[in-house]
Amino acid sequence: MTSGASTTPDPRARPIGVFDSGVGGLTVLHELLVRLPSEDFLYLGDTARFPYGERSPEQLIQFAAEIAEELAERGAKLLVVACNSATAAALPALRRRMMETTLGVDVLGVVRPEALRAVAATHTGRIGLLATPTTVASRAYEDAVNMIDPHVTLHAVPCPTLAEIIQDGEQFDERAVQTVREVCAPLKQADVDTVILGCTHYPLISPMLQRMLGPEVRLVTSGAALARQVEHALSTRELQNPRTEGEGEYRFLCTGDTREFEQVGTRFLQMPLGLVEHVELAAVEMTA
Amino acid sequence: MTSGASTTPDPRARPIGVFDSGVGGLTVLHELLVRLPSEDFLYLGDTARFPYGERSPEQLIQFAAEIAEELAERGAKLLVVACNSATAAALPALRRRMMETTLGVDVLGVVRPEALRAVAATHTGRIGLLATPTTVASRAYEDAVNMIDPHVTLHAVPCPTLAEIIQDGEQFDERAVQTVREVCAPLKQADVDTVILGCTHYPLISPMLQRMLGPEVRLVTSGAALARQVEHALSTRELQNPRTEGEGEYRFLCTGDTREFEQVGTRFLQMPLGLVEHVELAAVEMTA
Repeated sequence: MTSGASTTPDPRARPIGVFDSGVGGLTVLHELLVRLPSEDFLYLGDTARFPYGERSPEQLIQFAAEIAEELAERGAKLLVVACNSATAAALPALRRRMMETTLGVDVLGVVRPEALRAVAATHTGRIGLLATPTTVASRAYEDAVNMIDPHVTLHAVPCPTLAEIIQDGEQFDERAVQTVREVCAPLKQADVDTVILGCTHYPLISPMLQRMLGPEVRLVTSGAALARQVEHALSTRELQNPRTEGEGEYRFLCTGDTREFEQVGTRFLQMPLGLVEHVELAAVEMTA
Repeated sequence: MTSGASTTPDPRARPIGVFDSGVGGLTVLHELLVRLPSEDFLYLGDTARFPYGERSPEQLIQFAAEIAEELAERGAKLLVVACNSATAAALPALRRRMMETTLGVDVLGVVRPEALRAVAATHTGRIGLLATPTTVASRAYEDAVNMIDPHVTLHAVPCPTLAEIIQDGEQFDERAVQTVREVCAPLKQADVDTVILGCTHYPLISPMLQRMLGPEVRLVTSGAALARQVEHALSTRELQNPRTEGEGEYRFLCTGDTREFEQVGTRFLQMPLGLVEHVELAAVEMTA
């Protein structure tokens, strides 16, 4: 167990902090655990304030700062925002805050890594996006894709109920199949060859998506895309964990009910979850 | 619903039959559904006689013949043996029987497709195998690898309890992690770059395996390896389903308790399961 910065003087041995409004970010952590087995991870789910979708940008900047302080306090050497809403609203502000005012902790978020990977993967220049209506409306993926390659077209499909169906449904029923079929239809129509899963819940239904979109379509998940960038960030700063044997540890904090987090979390992590600790976040002062 | 050969005169529109002793083969069906979305599938789990591990080769040849007759009766255009024990014991006899004496239905099995894929994937010539003690003792994978490339070394690790742990465990505990760690240790020791998951239950823990073996090790599953060969077999015989819209149907038969099959099955299929039909297999006469 990593109990804080003070007990681990070697900065490389400190954990990577990952956060989200709930369990969704566990699909990102899942990929990070598989791709970076030597690293320790500390995941915080802000379940008491879930969901983030309807929050104002100011609120999200405040929430993200509180969480980042908590994770930095507990020794995080790098932060990953595994949440679309928080990334869209708070990433630049949070990165500025963490890089300049605290311990020089770098912050990575979703959206850009997926955009980069999707643009690199497409052969036809036609990319699809499945995401919540809020994320689609933010045009964050569109901007990211345009910035990387303005000749690539992004076909964005807002999915109002999909994350909720996945969160609720241990076993998928006909309603889930019908919903997935509906959101895939415009992407098939647009003949995309690459699809960004722009919500951290969606990897749980990637087999269904792959089947409906066809085996040749490349699915891009936040976790897989981020794993590579986290690797680069650690390497650039010479912060890779020096562990040579065994795998790193991972543990969980949440601001809401820990039992519920444990129950739903295992399905999202697809690995044993272990203990979940309740945490109360301290308010932080925001400077302009 | 495909209700039998008689109602579907176009042989291409008939389903692919897949069978196993239980739910394990559903991980193979899972890959087939993702890779061959236009095909219809009919899956039979011989749960009343599960497990096959301790049966004699003669019994398994008899069981396989009974199941194959049932599936052919229901219109299967191709058969897939999604079971290691049945493949090792019965594949040559079953293929002969189905090709010569019945409707010219071809039969594909596990083992050889994975061996082929693993030999094609390895760079170092060192392949690992995780399988049940029975499968390891049969040397079926060793023979298959040797036949394809005698210069490739197979490091086989018998896993006595792993399939059982996966079958039982909705949520994996410390015992599961410890077991997985133990079976991975000799493969890490042998420095293999490719690992065959030689039991249809193992894909359910592939994230854990990938994490413990390291991100550079290639995992080869029966389903992914078979999907390609099924595609070739259909193409050679011009039996691809001519469907141009939507996905094929899939349905389930089992010889034991249908409720239990439904409950455990969804986790193995990772897709909605739908209805499961109970079936009584008719005895068939075996000719020498």
